[in-house]
Amino acid sequence: MPIKVIAFDADDTLWVNEPYFQETEKEFCSLFEDYLPHHTVGRELLHTEIQNITLYGYGIKGFMLSMIETALKITNKTVSVEAVDKIIGYGKDLLARPIELLDGVEEVLTALKGHYRLVVATKGDLLDQERKLKKSGLEHYFHHIEIMSEKGEADYRKLLKHLDIKPDEFVMIGNSLKSDVLPVLNIGGHGIHVPYHITWAHERIEHNIEHENFRQVQQIKEIIPFLLSEINDGPEPGLH
Amino acid sequence: MPIKVIAFDADDTLWVNEPYFQETEKEFCSLFEDYLPHHTVGRELLHTEIQNITLYGYGIKGFMLSMIETALKITNKTVSVEAVDKIIGYGKDLLARPIELLDGVEEVLTALKGHYRLVVATKGDLLDQERKLKKSGLEHYFHHIEIMSEKGEADYRKLLKHLDIKPDEFVMIGNSLKSDVLPVLNIGGHGIHVPYHITWAHERIEHNIEHENFRQVQQIKEIIPFLLSEINDGPEPGLH
Repeated sequence: MPIKVIAFDADDTLWVNEPYFQETEKEFCSLFEDYLPHHTVGRELLHTEIQNITLYGYGIKGFMLSMIETALKITNKTVSVEAVDKIIGYGKDLLARPIELLDGVEEVLTALKGHYRLVVATKGDLLDQERKLKKSGLEHYFHHIEIMSEKGEADYRKLLKHLDIKPDEFVMIGNSLKSDVLPVLNIGGHGIHVPYHITWAHERIEHNIEHENFRQVQQIKEIIPFLLSEINDGPEPGLH
Repeated sequence: MPIKVIAFDADDTLWVNEPYFQETEKEFCSLFEDYLPHHTVGRELLHTEIQNITLYGYGIKGFMLSMIETALKITNKTVSVEAVDKIIGYGKDLLARPIELLDGVEEVLTALKGHYRLVVATKGDLLDQERKLKKSGLEHYFHHIEIMSEKGEADYRKLLKHLDIKPDEFVMIGNSLKSDVLPVLNIGGHGIHVPYHITWAHERIEHNIEHENFRQVQQIKEIIPFLLSEINDGPEPGLH
């Protein structure tokens, strides 16, 4: 069965994201360095974020609310209002960051466009991701953008139903084994892992994957010959 | 051309929403009644919300952040940290509200399912709207849920492209003339207005619509005979 849809994760697959969050987190920790060491504040923030994910989902707005909540908690509600104001400012700055495309991304999209239906499949705030896609200049390569509240097996099943395709007609490309690769392989799709040098603690897993539908590349452009050979030469071992 | 997709707005079309927001807003205003009269606080909040919409989009998380920002502003940064804590609590309560279906909704969905592709097309936070759809028990009626960052003409054009249908194959049903009806009519689709007794100030418009693709009903179940006659009797004046 030929591949019909290629989905790209956005943050840290198409463009830089996690380093920006980490810079903001550093600023946040510095606000409270008179109370607690950086790593303790960072750990508390991560704890609050993970606790709030089922309520807020992913994205900057939830991150802002979790920063404020962490500030209240670690200072035992003695945080200054100025600090709350600063946190809101950090979040707004994060929302206004420019887009820095990752190496090879545009080359890949140019090569694949017209051969497959290309979509973006990402977690995060809808408006923020749409804005980033627009700012990236990549919008015209994609059929549409799918914002997913989670990237578990059930979510990918819903996505496939929505796209009206079968699992083995679907390839997901991304930097997170946990979110972009494993659940897709588990439901019968194809997963390509393009590692990024920084991964958010919540996305990290230790896992050796051996699966006929799995590939790992070091550079995103390595997927070009592989996916184009699918069209020219028909099925290749490892993808079907 | 026959109708293929019927899209339903969610908040205040399928279930109660705006009254919950207004209750929260009242609690928020009460927090500051020693500083300012309720209506002044409410006006400031609306002002902040509208200013932040291009940055945050719609939904409860943005509402929470706007409440905090308003609190800082109207108290000239003398708001107590306890108040910030309360605001976060209000938001979390809002996210946990039960779903109260509006009259006739289930009847309409039962009648139409199988005849058309039914989707939910709504603004707001993705995770929150998905959770509400799940809690509503209505999920199985719908092909999928579309979260839109805005409901303007360009957004509906994108939606139609995504659904792979032509404008006159699309009907949008909702309580907001501004968001659910006018932009859809303007791009050649069909719009049905089902008014709700409370409308958020930002969604209110004064408008008399006369358009061959427009209908207004008082109760959502009035759309059943109308849309089923589309199937049984073919095109009817007013819809094609």
